[in-house]
Formats: sequence, C-alpha cells, structure tokens
Amino acid sequence: MNEQTIPIINAEDLMANAVRALTMDAVQKANSGHPGAPMGMADIASVLFNRFIKIDPTNPDWPDRDRFVLSAGHGSMLIYAIHHLLGYDDMDMDQLRNFRQMEARTAGHPEYGHAKGIETTTGPLGQGIATAVGMALAERMQNARFGDKLVDHYTYVLAGDGCLMEGISQEAIDFAGHMGLGKLIVFWDDNHITIDGPTDLSTSMDQRARFEAAGWHVQEINGHDKKAVAGAIDLARRENRPSMIACRTMIGFGSPAKQGTSGVHGAPLGEAEIEATRKALGWPHDAFEIPDSIYQSWGAIAERGALQRQVWEDRLIQSERKEDFATTLASPDAKALQSAIQILKEGLSESMPKVATRKASEITLDVIHNVLPNLAGGSADLTGSNNTRAKAMMPVTRHDFSGSYIHYGIREHCMAAIMNGLSLHGGFLPYGGTFLAFADYCRPAMRLSSLMEQPVVYVMTHDSIGLGEDGPTHQPVETIASLRAMPNMDVFRPADAVETAEAWELALLSSNTPSVLCLSRQGLPTIRKTHNAANMTAKGAYVLREATKDRDVTLFATGSEVTIALEAADILEEQDIQAAVVSVPCFELFMRQGDAYRLSVLGTAPRVGVEAAVRQGWSDLLGPKSAFVGMQGFGASAPADDLYRHFGITAENVARTAANLIS
Amino acid sequence: MNEQTIPIINAEDLMANAVRALTMDAVQKANSGHPGAPMGMADIASVLFNRFIKIDPTNPDWPDRDRFVLSAGHGSMLIYAIHHLLGYDDMDMDQLRNFRQMEARTAGHPEYGHAKGIETTTGPLGQGIATAVGMALAERMQNARFGDKLVDHYTYVLAGDGCLMEGISQEAIDFAGHMGLGKLIVFWDDNHITIDGPTDLSTSMDQRARFEAAGWHVQEINGHDKKAVAGAIDLARRENRPSMIACRTMIGFGSPAKQGTSGVHGAPLGEAEIEATRKALGWPHDAFEIPDSIYQSWGAIAERGALQRQVWEDRLIQSERKEDFATTLASPDAKALQSAIQILKEGLSESMPKVATRKASEITLDVIHNVLPNLAGGSADLTGSNNTRAKAMMPVTRHDFSGSYIHYGIREHCMAAIMNGLSLHGGFLPYGGTFLAFADYCRPAMRLSSLMEQPVVYVMTHDSIGLGEDGPTHQPVETIASLRAMPNMDVFRPADAVETAEAWELALLSSNTPSVLCLSRQGLPTIRKTHNAANMTAKGAYVLREATKDRDVTLFATGSEVTIALEAADILEEQDIQAAVVSVPCFELFMRQGDAYRLSVLGTAPRVGVEAAVRQGWSDLLGPKSAFVGMQGFGASAPADDLYRHFGITAENVARTAANLIS
Repeated sequence: MNEQTIPIINAEDLMANAVRALTMDAVQKANSGHPGAPMGMADIASVLFNRFIKIDPTNPDWPDRDRFVLSAGHGSMLIYAIHHLLGYDDMDMDQLRNFRQMEARTAGHPEYGHAKGIETTTGPLGQGIATAVGMALAERMQNARFGDKLVDHYTYVLAGDGCLMEGISQEAIDFAGHMGLGKLIVFWDDNHITIDGPTDLSTSMDQRARFEAAGWHVQEINGHDKKAVAGAIDLARRENRPSMIACRTMIGFGSPAKQGTSGVHGAPLGEAEIEATRKALGWPHDAFEIPDSIYQSWGAIAERGALQRQVWEDRLIQSERKEDFATTLASPDAKALQSAIQILKEGLSESMPKVATRKASEITLDVIHNVLPNLAGGSADLTGSNNTRAKAMMPVTRHDFSGSYIHYGIREHCMAAIMNGLSLHGGFLPYGGTFLAFADYCRPAMRLSSLMEQPVVYVMTHDSIGLGEDGPTHQPVETIASLRAMPNMDVFRPADAVETAEAWELALLSSNTPSVLCLSRQGLPTIRKTHNAANMTAKGAYVLREATKDRDVTLFATGSEVTIALEAADILEEQDIQAAVVSVPCFELFMRQGDAYRLSVLGTAPRVGVEAAVRQGWSDLLGPKSAFVGMQGFGASAPADDLYRHFGITAENVARTAANLIS
Repeated sequence: MNEQTIPIINAEDLMANAVRALTMDAVQKANSGHPGAPMGMADIASVLFNRFIKIDPTNPDWPDRDRFVLSAGHGSMLIYAIHHLLGYDDMDMDQLRNFRQMEARTAGHPEYGHAKGIETTTGPLGQGIATAVGMALAERMQNARFGDKLVDHYTYVLAGDGCLMEGISQEAIDFAGHMGLGKLIVFWDDNHITIDGPTDLSTSMDQRARFEAAGWHVQEINGHDKKAVAGAIDLARRENRPSMIACRTMIGFGSPAKQGTSGVHGAPLGEAEIEATRKALGWPHDAFEIPDSIYQSWGAIAERGALQRQVWEDRLIQSERKEDFATTLASPDAKALQSAIQILKEGLSESMPKVATRKASEITLDVIHNVLPNLAGGSADLTGSNNTRAKAMMPVTRHDFSGSYIHYGIREHCMAAIMNGLSLHGGFLPYGGTFLAFADYCRPAMRLSSLMEQPVVYVMTHDSIGLGEDGPTHQPVETIASLRAMPNMDVFRPADAVETAEAWELALLSSNTPSVLCLSRQGLPTIRKTHNAANMTAKGAYVLREATKDRDVTLFATGSEVTIALEAADILEEQDIQAAVVSVPCFELFMRQGDAYRLSVLGTAPRVGVEAAVRQGWSDLLGPKSAFVGMQGFGASAPADDLYRHFGITAENVARTAANLIS
C-alpha cells in the first residue's frame, strides 16, 4: 500500500465504526431494532459514501444526485447514522436517541418523507431493489431526453439475503439485465445469516451465476476490505450493464460474542456486549458521542456534494433545455390536461360510442399523451388487452431510452415497484396495466405507492365476470373491495368513456394518492349523453338520472353495472316505482365530499347497490334499508352475458330486488 | 432407428396431432381460448404421457399416481384433449364441444375439482410450478414415512415463459433446488413468444444458467423431436436433483400462417387457417372427430396405468403400514384433536396466562402435534417470531424428509403455493407463518387456496399496530379487511390463548375452507377465565360479558382489542351505562349462524366496533346506530402502547365513543 492510501483507509475505518457505534447505541436505547445489518454493511457504506456518492445534504432533492436505496430496510440505523454524520439538518443526535419512538423521524424502517434524503420506503423485502430498478430506468430515460450534462447519476442498492430470496428480486434482476441499466449497482450483503439461522437452512442459490444469467456484471469481494470495495465500485461504474457486488460480510461486525449469528439480526446487543464491542473496535467514546474528526470526515462528503451540485446548477442554467427540464419535474400541466379532456368528453358525449372502458382508456391516452410529455406507460405483457399504449408511444429499449412505453414483461409485482421508482425519481408520470385480478400480484408494491403517497396509476382491465370465458382465476370479485380497503388509494370504476376520461384526469392530477382504474373488457354504452364541463367523477358519486317524482328507491352502481341500473330504473318506472340512478365511479372521493352534497346524492329513499363484486365496503354507502345485487363468491367460465344472467346481475333482478325492498 | 421405435414415434405423431386438432376445434367453437400453447406442447405431452406417466383414469385419485401440472394454464385444452383421449369418464366429446361454456367442466383455465385428474387450478402465472414444488415435496416427505413401495411418483410440470418470468417461479426454483426434489421435472415451453410479441421485448434471461444456479439439472432439446423428448425425460428421471428440460417449440405448431407468432396465443385460428393446419398436419378428419386407432393409442396409457395401480394396491394390502397410510390421507382425527384442545383450554382457563396469541398458538401446536402426525408446519424465515415450530418438530431437509417443519426461506408467496401443493397432494395438513402485513405477498396463492377449497392454515402474526416499532410497512391496517373480502376464507382473530386454541381446532377440522389466524405480537390477558367445553369461536361471535341489566350499548371487538372493550365496559359501568361485550373471533363463521343466534348476540342496543384496523367490513355487523374505534390510515413506528394511545384505541376512548353514541 502506498502512503496516500493508508490515511484514507484509517479515516474510513473510523467513519465505519461511527456508524456501528451509533447503531448499537440507538438500538440499545430503543430496546428494539436491527443492529446486525448496519454493523455488517458499515464498511461498504463508508467507502461508497466517502469515495463515490454524489449527494448534497443541504439540497437533498437535487435532481442529479445519486440515489441510495437501503433495500434491507430493517438496517435503517445505517441511513440514520450516515445522515446524522453527513449533517442532514433534520437528523440531529436527538433523532438517533429517539430511534423508533413516536414522532421521531427515525422510524423502525426508513420511511419516505419522514426524513430528508430517504429515497424510498423499505422494509418489505425485495421492494427496495425493484424500486431502485425503476429509479435507474428513470435516470436512463431522462438521460436520453436531456443528455449527460443534466442527467448522469448512479443508483446504489444495499440488499440482503431476504431481498434476493423474494420473487420480486428476480423480476427486477431480469428486467434490469434486459434493459442494460449500467448505472445500477447492487451490493449484496452476503452474511450467510437469516432470521431462522444460517442461509443454508433454506437456500443453495449461486447468486453470482444467477445474476450473470440475467446479464449482470458480477464481482465477489470481502465486504470489510475497503480497498476491495472501492475497486469493485470503480469497476462496476465503468460497466454498461447493471452490476452486482457480492460482499462477504460478518453480520454484526465488531460484536465479539454475537457477530456472525442470527442473534445480532433483530435485537439489541445488550450493555455488556456493547462494551465488549467498543473494546474490540477500539472505540473509546461514550454512547452517542462522535469525535469532531469523524464528523469532519463525513462532512467532507457533504462539501464535495455541495460543490458537485453547484457545478451542475451552473450547467443547468447554461442549458437550452432548462425550462423543459423543469417542466418534467413539475406537476403536470393541469390546464392543458383539463382542456384536452374537455374536448374529448364533448366529442364522446356527442358520438356516444359503445366501447369497453379499457378501449376508452386507450382513446384517452392518445389525447393525454399529446399534452403530458412525461407520461411513462406500460403493461405486464398485456398491451393489447389492457389497451395501455397510446399510438404515438415508442417502446423504451436498452438501445434507445427516449421512448415512453415500457414492456414490463410478465412481472406485475416488479412493474408496480418500478412505477414507484419512476415516480420517486421524478421526471415521469408512470402508469402500468395488468388484469384487475392480478392486482394481487402487485399488492405489496401498491401498498408502498399508497404509503409513500406516489400518484402512480394502475390500469387494471377485465374488471369483473364481464371478462367471461377465462373464468374465476381471472375474474376479480373481491379485488375491488380489497383495494378500497387500502388507505390512500383512489379506486375508480368508470361506467363509460366519459367517466374513463374524467378518471384519467383525476388520477394524473392527484399529487399524493395513487389510483386504480378498474376497466371493463366488455363494451359499454355511453351513459353521459349530455356534455358536462364539470368533472362529475371528481365527486365520487353523482345522480345520473333523477326520479321524475319523489324517489321511491335509489340505485347505486359502478362501472359496467351502471347501464344495468339504468335499465332497471326503466323497468321500475313501468311499475310506477320512481328510481333515481347514482353512478359511483369512486367511493373514496365521494366519502371526501361535504355532508350536504353527499346527502343530496344519497337521498332518503331505500337504496340498492349494484356491482359485479362482493358487497364488502358497500354497507357504509347503502345504510340500513338497503339491498345489494352482486357476487357472493367466485365467478365461473362462460361467455359474459351468460355469467351476468347466471349470477343474477341483470336489470330484471335489480328491479325485482328494488321492488321487494320497498314493498 | 430400430424397427421397434418407428411405429411408436408414428403413433405419437398422431397422438399429438389429435391434441392439436381437438384444441383448434374447441377454441374455434367457443370463439375464445388459447390454441398456441397446446399445439406447441402437444409433442412433449404425447411423449410424456405415452411413455412415462403413471395415472389411472378410472382411479384419478390413486395416491401414488404421477402428478401432472399445466402451469401454463391458459393452455387448458391440452389437459382436456388428453383427458378425453385417455377416456376419463367425465370428459366426453360434448365437454370439448362446450369448452368455456356455462356448466361445462372445460373451463377457460383448468379448475381443480371441475373435472377428474386436474391436479391444481392454474392460470395465474407461476402458481402451477410453485404448487408443483409443494406436491414434489409432499412426495418426498411421504416417501420418507412410507418407503418406495408405497410412495414413488413424479411431478411433471409444463411451464411457459410467463411462469418463468413471474417472481414466484424464482422462489419455487430456489426452494426445489435447495431441497433436491429429484422427482420434479419441469418442461419449459420455450417458444420465444409472449402476448406482447417476441420474448426479447422484455427478457434476456439465460434460463439454463438460472436453473443451474439454483442447483437444477438442465437439458435443452427440440420440443418437437420426440426421441429427444423421451431421452431427456429418461435422463431427468434418473437425476436426484430437480430437472428442467428447455424445449424449443413453435407456438401453434402446425398452423402454416400463424405458428411462431403471438397471434396464435389467445385467439381462435379461424376456419380457413384450421383447414390449412389440417392439411399441413396431414389430418384428414372432421372437427371433433378422432379415429379409433388414436383412441386406442391413448387408451393403452390408461390400461398401463390401471395395471400399475393394481400392482400398487397389492403392495399396499401387503404392507404393514397400510392403516397408517390410510390415516395420513384421511381427514384429521377430530375426536383426538378436540379432546386434546379441551384439556388445553381447561388448563388455560385455570392458569390464565398473559401471552401473545402467537405464543398461545405455539402452545397449541405443541399439543396438536402430538395428535395429528401429518401436520406440516413452517415459516417464511420468521420461526421465532411466528412461533410456528412445535418443540417436537424436526426440520425437513434434503437429506432427511422425515421431519415436519419446513424452512420456507424468505419466500412468502411460494410458501403459500407450496402449502397448496402439500394439501392437494394429500397426506399432510400444511400451515405456514409470516407477518400479517406480508399476507399481501402470499395473496395470489391464498386466493387459490380459497378457490380450490384447500384447508391450508395461514399463521399470520404481528397482526396490528400492536407490533410497535417496526412501523407502518409492517403494520397491517387494511389486511384483515382485504382477507375478509376473499370468498371462502375464514379469518380468525383470537382474543386470548383459549380462543387461539379454538381457532386452531376449527382451522384444522375445516374440510373445504382455508383459514388465516391473525395473532398478536403483544401479550394479552386470558379473557376466557371459566372453562367452557363448547368451542365458542365456532360461533364466530359470542357474548363474552353480558350487561348486568338491559344493554345500553354492545361493544364488539376482535383479538387484542377485546381486552380494551372489557375495560371500556368497566368504565361505562361506573357511569351507569350497561355495556355487553361481544368477542368476534371470526366474522365469516358468525355470518353463517342462524338468525336467532345472531340476533341474540347482536342485541338491539347501539353498537360500537373496536378493531385496530380499518372499518371496512364492520358496517354489516354494526348496523345503523353505531360507531367504530379503529384505524383511519397507516400506522407509525413507536412502542405499541404509545401507538394505541396515539390512534385512540383505548378503553377510555371506546367508553367515550359508546357514551356519545347513546347520549
């Protein structure tokens, strides 16, 4: 080793030990948490941050920063310790002292939005690496639009065995390898330990071969050899494929009695072992005490980053594209979108097409795509079925990232996580499609869209037994209810082409809430035959057809069943029963309306709900004197019309049910 | 080639073409379906069935039969055509003529229970291969118990690109390779086509290297070269690792204009192209017409199978273990289980432990394990947290399958599918654990448990904000509602150790319904302090504490919140408000009770629901004059007690809410 190297390595040892010390102190004080991973990964992280990473703690949202994703989110103290040492102004020592306590930013797992610089919420295993693939994809796509001068950053991921055992990691690895995401670098914290014990209890995977099979560049190093770590990162950065660096580490590195065991994974070390660890590491300081020299080492990273950011800002100011660049990062142009949707709606109310709402969605996308240039669409290999590709959209490929349509492959879960990554990265409005029944495959990532308040749009077609012959595996009956149960998720089920256009407008203008568009396979007549400038779907529910006299009954329906409710109202009218029909395209938005509006829609007459799905969630809307026409269990395989008749979701049955209810 | 081989190969050509012809005819008649896969895989299937498979169509449930799983379930006509040709008595030509029609057994995707010999429901991609891993595991576990003479069969899987792109396939492959499931043979229908187009639109995976990385034996062959197929199967059967045979095929083989394109995947060929295909294949017969000679070829397979079954039956009769063997396949011994649970309940009501229900579950498992020898437990790497391992359980390993505890690894989704496979195979009562929040990862396979009516038990701990510091990613708030939404799924949330024991009894005696046990992380006092021989949990809800006078209000609670409701009733009593407390361990069971019982529990007083989760699903129980104390959104990271206070789920708030409601 030459002399220049030695002091750097020594400083990095101390930098890493500071992370270890803060980790064990915070976990001990909280009497809860996971010391093993941060202590094991401290060397890797110290080298990465000290020598490579490009972030500016005073401008944590600087667009061209590197992204750092701790996929092994239980090791959250790694992020908190590093952010404290880097001088993030919202991460003072009190935050570390209050690790995992109420109101602290230092949640058990890193929560996006709780503290600056946390790029994504992690904890549910495998989500971090898949979300990072989305970020790395966004980088390449933005780079293709604005060039190296404005967009040129890395996405670094620390992943553990858990992340790599989860199926979503395979989808992510396959996708990233296929797309050749060369600026994605994943560190595998190969510590041979999971919660149940040694990894060989449950896996024999040759991870190196696995990543190579997916087209990745792979290296294997000792994760505590800082020179090796630095060399590997350097090499990985020069590859034009994604890189995996398998880092052999010791979980809980430094703890004489517990390192290398599952005992250090998820429990405090205990005071005695902390003392022993301090000795073993040669760390003479008290709990939560960091010498200035170490703060200075970490602070130098922040200074470097601030300079890098300044240089970048200068480049941006000089760029001809600076306004375009700002536009892609800003909220979508609401006026342009609304005006385009207005024109579309007017045309639809005039031409009154009978189209499936999935087709209406495609028509809408053709319009939207012209006014929102940063739309990034895709489908999990159901493009022609989900109707997700606007005509003008070109595919994104490893050779040309300037397109805007992503072939996600048969990987619904990863698609959802990638969309989270695209959204978190900034610069894109992601949407992606699959069959609604397969929302179940996406669900863990959808939950993170909701929790992180990312306005991702899920285009989920074939939304009921109306899909017909594919049968019960493909027919959602409980899926809509299960999505409505999720906090901060707007579930739209438009009834015709006009409501579909309105739902798209709302989904794209939502700033903090993801949306699901539940769209029909089967053709549906236009029910909004008179153009209304107002976005009626924004109300969540509205009176589509008022009773001619006082209401005897009100029929509430969504999506494809609104037409059935309208026909039922006709039948009831013949029987001199006055029925109003309410279209309910979005429960969540309706619940957010004022009492007066809600009462005006709900009325006081008995209520009948109609939805080709289970009743759960309807009772709050329907109230005490009510009935429901829908599904009681799973569907069946047959043509759609036969199924509707078989399950009694017909105008006749709705009318009969309503008549019985009020008789 | 020798003379003996040639006629077999020729016959197999015709056997395969019969499958192709029936496929295109049935899809055409239905005007719906997927001809591409069955036509592409017909050669593989013909060789497999003709030369290797061991099934007896007259005894489709014969325990030692080979299992055949069509993971690419959209190719359902492959199964139906083969079963017709083999002479299954419920698969006459009318079934094929009524493909995908109401009431026909020939559903769009193969549905378990709809027709004989369908080993599992497939269609949601990746599920078949993962379920098959469970079957192959069951075979080895049963073999370890009963030896080669009684248990010695293969599990064959036909999987497409979709199955292999889904993340669950990685979990399945990793697990199978680790366990060395040598009697599992997977054919990859490598046709280079997905719905969106060529596979290279979305993947560059070297599947061969990927499977090898997981410890599999891999071969590559031309899937239309029957000799190569036979040779590969022969070799695969002799391997003591799982085998993957990559079969290069032409999707829609035989269709001159459409083969090899995505156009043949999911749409009828059309009359003209069917005519052209008949010509190309040299198939002179009319639609739905099969010459006797071909029936005879297929019939020979059935005859061989009947003989194999008879030989096996003879061995069984001579076996000393025949009664044990029958026992493992029969329903669990209800009397023994109930009596063991009785004793346990009596002891618990006496000792009144304050334990988490996850711990109570472990205590119960220790008891159950002694009376139900075919229990097969496990956890997705959370054994110590889920408390899923009974003391006497030994792990199942690749070297010793005689154990009963499975280390599933960090693979929740595959765990659920493997449990489906264990249950479908027969011989085992599977249960498996993870955190309740990660039910989302399992959900697509849980849906198949429900749809296939398999009494799998999901042990899901850390069931609310009561898990504390791990924070919102780990705290289910909508998960219970989302599971209650699922048809045919019993969701239990026991309030104490006694209810936990009762819930286990019900879950294990359920014959057609899977169960979820939602269990607390935190300690809960015993609320069932007086022993009651009756299984009160079986009622779904019951009056735990009646009001001393007429009820002013009834408090309904589940799990950890029952104690809070009891305390609230105490507070209300001090205010002279008469509150009854109803424990609701299982909504689904309560809804199945008779009106009289339900009314007696519900009473006529206003109702307050208490559950540390979202309200969805509660309104049906609570009715019009009601209130709910629970969660409105995601949780937070803090100690459990702080969280309960923060979110207002306290006895004081419940009492206040109740008092306000009736004032």
